[in-house]
Amino acid sequence: MQTFRLTLEYDGSRFSGWQEQINARTVQGELKQAVLDVFRSDVEVQGAGRTDAGVHAVGQVAHLKIRDKGPTLTASQILRELNDKLPASIAVLDVTEVPPRFHARHDAKSRAYFYQISTRKAALSKRFVWWIKEPLDVERMQQAAALIAGRHDFVAFRAADPSKPGESTIVVVESAEVSVDDNLVVFRIEASHFIWKMVRRLTGTLVKVGRGEVSVDEFRELLKGKKTPKFDIAAWTAPASGLFLEGVRY
Amino acid sequence: MQTFRLTLEYDGSRFSGWQEQINARTVQGELKQAVLDVFRSDVEVQGAGRTDAGVHAVGQVAHLKIRDKGPTLTASQILRELNDKLPASIAVLDVTEVPPRFHARHDAKSRAYFYQISTRKAALSKRFVWWIKEPLDVERMQQAAALIAGRHDFVAFRAADPSKPGESTIVVVESAEVSVDDNLVVFRIEASHFIWKMVRRLTGTLVKVGRGEVSVDEFRELLKGKKTPKFDIAAWTAPASGLFLEGVRY
Repeated sequence: MQTFRLTLEYDGSRFSGWQEQINARTVQGELKQAVLDVFRSDVEVQGAGRTDAGVHAVGQVAHLKIRDKGPTLTASQILRELNDKLPASIAVLDVTEVPPRFHARHDAKSRAYFYQISTRKAALSKRFVWWIKEPLDVERMQQAAALIAGRHDFVAFRAADPSKPGESTIVVVESAEVSVDDNLVVFRIEASHFIWKMVRRLTGTLVKVGRGEVSVDEFRELLKGKKTPKFDIAAWTAPASGLFLEGVRY
Repeated sequence: MQTFRLTLEYDGSRFSGWQEQINARTVQGELKQAVLDVFRSDVEVQGAGRTDAGVHAVGQVAHLKIRDKGPTLTASQILRELNDKLPASIAVLDVTEVPPRFHARHDAKSRAYFYQISTRKAALSKRFVWWIKEPLDVERMQQAAALIAGRHDFVAFRAADPSKPGESTIVVVESAEVSVDDNLVVFRIEASHFIWKMVRRLTGTLVKVGRGEVSVDEFRELLKGKKTPKFDIAAWTAPASGLFLEGVRY
């Protein structure tokens, strides 16, 4: 058996997320089809992180396990052939042969995501940003983001995941920060795992902090694992368009 | 009469170019409609350069001449209102009041365009690059591009413009260069004016140079105003997707 690690970039705008589904166009589904076209045999394709509908990736990682014969291809041949077969909105950036037991999801130590907020109308990157028309106090957003690193109960920011009943809402965040470059405000966060919609709800709440509707102290309270009936955080969930899976660390 | 200078960014992918047309969606047409919605009166809207179908802009300039009453708006109000009314793929970046006689096209001293070539599949910027799969010798492209500055007869690179019969094919190019940044090869050119499809045909020919199918010497000959039956330059016209109107100098 041969195992390959793939690094992928995709524009998630027109996909129903990463995870393969019946009757929906997904990134994993397209990748599986392309792999089947190339190898004409049963191949396992698994990704490191399930991105939601509309979410993008610049460094998604997947493994490819080739069980039976099929053609023997080098990593660079696989790269070229998959890119030829995949739609324009999915690109394979790298293919590397790895030890047979490598597993993209189980072996991942952490995932990093970033979220792009634009403070001006951005005609060229409208699919990749969330345009906030009101002025943002970025310094206050940075103060709030600096509180996120560490071990917290993110119950205030989670959406219940039907596929994971009883899932813990405790997450250890390795790093989180807000940076600004001209008209782009970027929130970046890295953790071993994330709970569903956590990054988009953190982003939405940070925007509320930037607009002065939530104080840094209130943000700190939210990180203490209390549900605050005062805030309807679910309604603040940032749109998928601005979110990117940046990369996966092993 | 009040005159405003607008700086515009647009994703040209889904427009039939800049120039207003009947039964086609154009950038000027959308802008005129938005201006009419805001001012509810007869307003002249003219751009500095007509970009073709599918061509983008990061710094198109247009003027707005407001003839009769209508509401009196400040530049920043016009910016906000137009951005609210324009589709997501057109953004007004700046509005400045200028002397009443300012004319976006007649007063322009030069226009700069750039063309983006990607040497890898680019899933996020597929609408904004031309993906060349074969290896490119960028140094040779740079040698050829360095020959373009100056006064030349670009007859080999022009497409006859039905709206300008008998147009001269002599153009004085102020600067032209090829630069490279990771997987992106960018051809940038500035001139007082351009003949139809000149930038895309120069780009297509530079790619042939990069692929070793046209020598730098042959490229030099093409700049001498000779038509070379050996080369079918029209067939090499680079696709619109990679081309951007960068800016206009006054």
